Amino acid sequence: MKDEQILAARRRAVKKLAAAGIQLTDVEQANVEVADFGLGELELQGLEIVTYVNNDRYCAKELVLFPRQTCPEHLHPPVGDEPGKMETFRCRAGVVYLYVEGKATSAIAAQVPPGSEAHYTVFHEVALRPGEQYTIMPGIKHWFQAGDAGAIVSEFSSTSRDEFDLFTDPRIARMANL
Amino acid sequence: MKDEQILAARRRAVKKLAAAGIQLTDVEQANVEVADFGLGELELQGLEIVTYVNNDRYCAKELVLFPRQTCPEHLHPPVGDEPGKMETFRCRAGVVYLYVEGKATSAIAAQVPPGSEAHYTVFHEVALRPGEQYTIMPGIKHWFQAGDAGAIVSEFSSTSRDEFDLFTDPRIARMANL
Repeated sequence: MKDEQILAARRRAVKKLAAAGIQLTDVEQANVEVADFGLGELELQGLEIVTYVNNDRYCAKELVLFPRQTCPEHLHPPVGDEPGKMETFRCRAGVVYLYVEGKATSAIAAQVPPGSEAHYTVFHEVALRPGEQYTIMPGIKHWFQAGDAGAIVSEFSSTSRDEFDLFTDPRIARMANL
Repeated sequence: MKDEQILAARRRAVKKLAAAGIQLTDVEQANVEVADFGLGELELQGLEIVTYVNNDRYCAKELVLFPRQTCPEHLHPPVGDEPGKMETFRCRAGVVYLYVEGKATSAIAAQVPPGSEAHYTVFHEVALRPGEQYTIMPGIKHWFQAGDAGAIVSEFSSTSRDEFDLFTDPRIARMANL
């Protein structure tokens, strides 16, 4: 991504958080993580992340999704002796459509990112509105997309070790392994 | 505490959370924990708590403090093979004065609850305003008080096992051991 694209996404994410009453320090604002997963289509597949804390026991983040922006399908495998990351998503603003393993929902609310259909394989839908939450168990494939107004999701979890995440889309795996 | 006191405190906490843009489900609203630590002076020493999740790996809560309300001094000891609870306090609204072990601050901003002076022993002050956070290491004595407008604090932590907490005030220990 170009620097200006990252800066613009960062500003947009900070604005969305502020509108939801979530305040960041100047340092946090300057360090909002903008992830396009190496796919080069941030608006379609991407995520903006504020990591409040990530230590060897727990982690807490704020996830910002632009309208219809999608975090691609992935899972958190065991790392060493520890089971994979376990995470609780709590919707703060907007609506987020979360998909996990299980019986596929017949007509899902999300739009699978065009051109990436082969890399989305789980379709059990959990719709989360402000105040609603869902816990994703370790090793479970999942992906999520914001509704038309975007979304803010608080993530409470065990330790985050993003570098071990396994994405269904092999283009992302190759990126991570560079 | 009388039922009506609990219900009133619960309503007040939900209102404060809503004003800060933090939405709860109906079930969560009905289950806000109102703790007076058995001291019978909720306004002075007490805490209102929403526990979002508490599993064997992590915990996340929202803490609501009324104006000048104080959570009494305590620490989180090791439990079994695990080190004591580690917790990150992130201020969301108002101001919270947190006191931990270390060099005492010369003129602290909090007012030690009258009549309980003997049970407050650590005075290293950390003032947290919205967007600011601090991580309390396991085994460290701490207490906190809201400013004049009350406060909302998000707590991200390792597993919460409140029944093992060690309070400096022996009246609270007796309460917990009943």
